[in-house]
Amino acid sequence: MSSFDEELAKLKTYISQMGGVVEAQLVDAVGAVHRRDDEKGQRVRASDDRVDEYEAEVELFTHRLLALRQPVATDLRCVLAALKIAADLERVGDYAANIAKRASALSNLADVAPTGGIVRMGQLTQALIKDVLDAYCDGNADLAQTAWKKDEEIDEIYTSLFREYLTYMMEDPRNITPCTHLLFVAKNLERVGDHATNIAETVYFMETGERLVGERPKGDDSSFAVVVPPSAS
Amino acid sequence: MSSFDEELAKLKTYISQMGGVVEAQLVDAVGAVHRRDDEKGQRVRASDDRVDEYEAEVELFTHRLLALRQPVATDLRCVLAALKIAADLERVGDYAANIAKRASALSNLADVAPTGGIVRMGQLTQALIKDVLDAYCDGNADLAQTAWKKDEEIDEIYTSLFREYLTYMMEDPRNITPCTHLLFVAKNLERVGDHATNIAETVYFMETGERLVGERPKGDDSSFAVVVPPSAS
Repeated sequence: MSSFDEELAKLKTYISQMGGVVEAQLVDAVGAVHRRDDEKGQRVRASDDRVDEYEAEVELFTHRLLALRQPVATDLRCVLAALKIAADLERVGDYAANIAKRASALSNLADVAPTGGIVRMGQLTQALIKDVLDAYCDGNADLAQTAWKKDEEIDEIYTSLFREYLTYMMEDPRNITPCTHLLFVAKNLERVGDHATNIAETVYFMETGERLVGERPKGDDSSFAVVVPPSAS
Repeated sequence: MSSFDEELAKLKTYISQMGGVVEAQLVDAVGAVHRRDDEKGQRVRASDDRVDEYEAEVELFTHRLLALRQPVATDLRCVLAALKIAADLERVGDYAANIAKRASALSNLADVAPTGGIVRMGQLTQALIKDVLDAYCDGNADLAQTAWKKDEEIDEIYTSLFREYLTYMMEDPRNITPCTHLLFVAKNLERVGDHATNIAETVYFMETGERLVGERPKGDDSSFAVVVPPSAS
């Protein structure tokens, strides 16, 4: 194996490790919300620095690769893909940390609303992150394309949770603070799905040199949603 | 001027133009929310494709520059900075489009809550985007560092709006849907501030080769916020 190939492999390993940390953060953050577990939430927030360090590491490494090796064609696409994916993973880590903060707020509040939908969204986003990272590591454009279309289900759950939590809020003002935090948790997970989609696009371009085009199925209509309290309808 | 310098200048022009479009989107989206103006909201959403095209253009241009020119040192940092900044601006465009969607939802709802704080947040984030883009165009690391610290005020307004809107929601269930949309508008603007901060960091690194370090002042505590309805306290 040439030294440049070794360095590319090392870059892939960095991204895989970073992805592993982010995946674990996501699972733990959602678990902390589900169980209103402040301590677990704090641990997730503490691990955010590690993700930031990974991103800085990947940036440094890719800058050095570009300067010293001056790759072209496929090699250049691989290096730039790593840079983009690291930025997406860093944002996912931020969202996990924000979810974890809300777990802390929720641990001080009455346990008023079910979080089954959030757990389901968490599982789907984590599976999506795993799929796109597998696609990246295996250089599998087909897997990237399949994953790209999966974001729709996450969007649909989000839209339905939006309506559900608003209804809880209308039933009792004491539900407003906890349900607002849960709404933001769901929104964060929806954004994680968007970043997974970005990664799928990056992998597809890395492998094929073509952009993933066509309308991606989207299921998030929550920004347009109008929910009316029972008494007003 | 050498041809490579011309190409770098062209890259800066792309980013400036893209920044200009995004700035205008942001102003219009916030204006649409303030005036519950569905038509204006629709125009902002329609312009999101232009921002995506700019990002694709910048990516294509930088890939070509890297492959054909194989820049090193400062030139390499300039090219990679453009790539990062375009990605941040694209996200800002997404947030503006999301704000515009909520303007459409709000146009169908009673005008229950003041949006002065949102307008103020919009002005501050727009000014911040302008500052970091000026810093980028002029290669001004000091301006980038000053802008980097300004995000705090945006965060503080956001935290205070979070409490304010939750209080409105507790007063009357009919306020819940509009105030939830306004909360998400404020959250989107807070994220725009984060992306402006990212751009400041990118510009600083581009100019100095050093990372902006030290604790950045942060004023957003809303993720921990617990607001209790008057009747329950």
